[in-house]
Amino acid sequence: MNFADRLLAAIDRKKTPLIVGLDPVYESLPSAVTSRCGGNDPTARVEAILQFARCVLGAVAPHVPAVKINSAYFESYHWRGVQAYIHLIQEAQALGLLVIGDVKRADIGHTAAQYAQAALADHKFTNGDKLIGPDAITINPYFGFDGVAPFLDVARRQDKGIFVLLRTSNASAGEIQEIPTADGRPLFMHTAGLIDKWGRDLIGAHGWSGVGAVVGATSGESIARLRGVMPHTPFLIPGIGAQSGSLTDCAHAFRHGAGAVISASRSIIFAYRESLYQQLPPENWIQAVEQATLRTKTRITEVLDL
Amino acid sequence: MNFADRLLAAIDRKKTPLIVGLDPVYESLPSAVTSRCGGNDPTARVEAILQFARCVLGAVAPHVPAVKINSAYFESYHWRGVQAYIHLIQEAQALGLLVIGDVKRADIGHTAAQYAQAALADHKFTNGDKLIGPDAITINPYFGFDGVAPFLDVARRQDKGIFVLLRTSNASAGEIQEIPTADGRPLFMHTAGLIDKWGRDLIGAHGWSGVGAVVGATSGESIARLRGVMPHTPFLIPGIGAQSGSLTDCAHAFRHGAGAVISASRSIIFAYRESLYQQLPPENWIQAVEQATLRTKTRITEVLDL
Repeated sequence: MNFADRLLAAIDRKKTPLIVGLDPVYESLPSAVTSRCGGNDPTARVEAILQFARCVLGAVAPHVPAVKINSAYFESYHWRGVQAYIHLIQEAQALGLLVIGDVKRADIGHTAAQYAQAALADHKFTNGDKLIGPDAITINPYFGFDGVAPFLDVARRQDKGIFVLLRTSNASAGEIQEIPTADGRPLFMHTAGLIDKWGRDLIGAHGWSGVGAVVGATSGESIARLRGVMPHTPFLIPGIGAQSGSLTDCAHAFRHGAGAVISASRSIIFAYRESLYQQLPPENWIQAVEQATLRTKTRITEVLDL
Repeated sequence: MNFADRLLAAIDRKKTPLIVGLDPVYESLPSAVTSRCGGNDPTARVEAILQFARCVLGAVAPHVPAVKINSAYFESYHWRGVQAYIHLIQEAQALGLLVIGDVKRADIGHTAAQYAQAALADHKFTNGDKLIGPDAITINPYFGFDGVAPFLDVARRQDKGIFVLLRTSNASAGEIQEIPTADGRPLFMHTAGLIDKWGRDLIGAHGWSGVGAVVGATSGESIARLRGVMPHTPFLIPGIGAQSGSLTDCAHAFRHGAGAVISASRSIIFAYRESLYQQLPPENWIQAVEQATLRTKTRITEVLDL
């Protein structure tokens, strides 16, 4: 089944477009985790991060359709981290979660094909082992279509998805993404047209494409403009904290209750640090994760009137 | 010593701006390598690629200042590949080569800092192990300065370099990079101004910055235009085959014999497949690598009049 249809079905089952972002840093782990494993040795730190992430997956799996695992936080532990990242993908999928690998890769031709194999594809090994790649990944559009085509090929063959970086929400994103082009529109509106075109061959049964776009919750106006020119493109909206007011802006991404997933990361996985949950005993940090997930879910349902 | 100065000194020692690109695929390895190790098992394939790459490093180390190792070709073997990639970096440096890690990473804020740690930084572990990162890496500018700053920080602290993707030579690069901006110039000329600015704090003793740019050998005219607005930026020019005529275009990147490195990959590492070297016995594929390196070096010296 087309990735967009799988995502829609999962959103329908869990009754929320909320997804949980996993970007764990060792220094932020609850003491209940680091006192059992961890330390200064990188191998011990990776083990602590893996244990932490496993507990988070268990806590959120009943409540959300997908998780977004950010590869950078694992790559900083080199091959040990990459091994943990790949294990987590398999474990999340075994819990019934869709997995978006947040890798932001890009290259051209042969090299992009290698990245598509590395970051997105399923592999069958001759010894019978099977490695399931994530259900979707994030990629960077800077190379144009040549840089995207190899990822599209894997997505088409294996019913997977890609989310192309479009309009990010960082302060300096405008330095390139908002440069006015000759026709008066900012560059990201031009890129939006490209992403819409790249996704036309992967439209599923419900009118949404397997090619999505990463769109920061910058302003309701820009989200509405993008939705206007991208009728089939699912949006991945990162960085919504539990308390953030910009949720109202996200409403413009939706049509008939579909069209976007909204990712919350630190406000959920490190919820134990929030004042709201500090009355919980430290060993109950997993409860804080679950409660923050449910609260964010409720808030999204209310604000977006889903 | 500033990365640009280290690179210049190495170019001076080896008397060439030629660098060798390592992007090995198992299917292209000489039979002399795959008959000794290799097979269908991914672990065996990584081992074969590692043996192959080691031999290439040994053959080219006396002749070129640097190698560019493309991470994608290792990442496709997951953590085993990443381990091989990191070992190769250390081994190349032990042979006196500078190493450019071709990783094309990009993200924002905290996540970019994780990628900078993962892909560029040196690490000292508490058990006394030391892991030396590559001397420079390639990155993608799409996020603007926020996405570059964490890499600049590591570069400044550890005297390393970054090469920012600017104008790539793939057919569809123009879809974004050549979009006309409101002032009439293509987007890449605007990006060129940003990269020049980002590199101003890292200018070394010879006037070249630790912040370089990846510039395809598309046309002499565009290389000349870029050199005009980027007086301090070293160019990394990839994809020059031994027979390619576009070497003449590269001349515009140089000033007084400095200003660019020119990377050749498959034409050197898989030289054994070229008709020129097919009279060599198959087990002499390493000789073909060395001869192709020397021939390319001679050709660059002649064409560029160095």
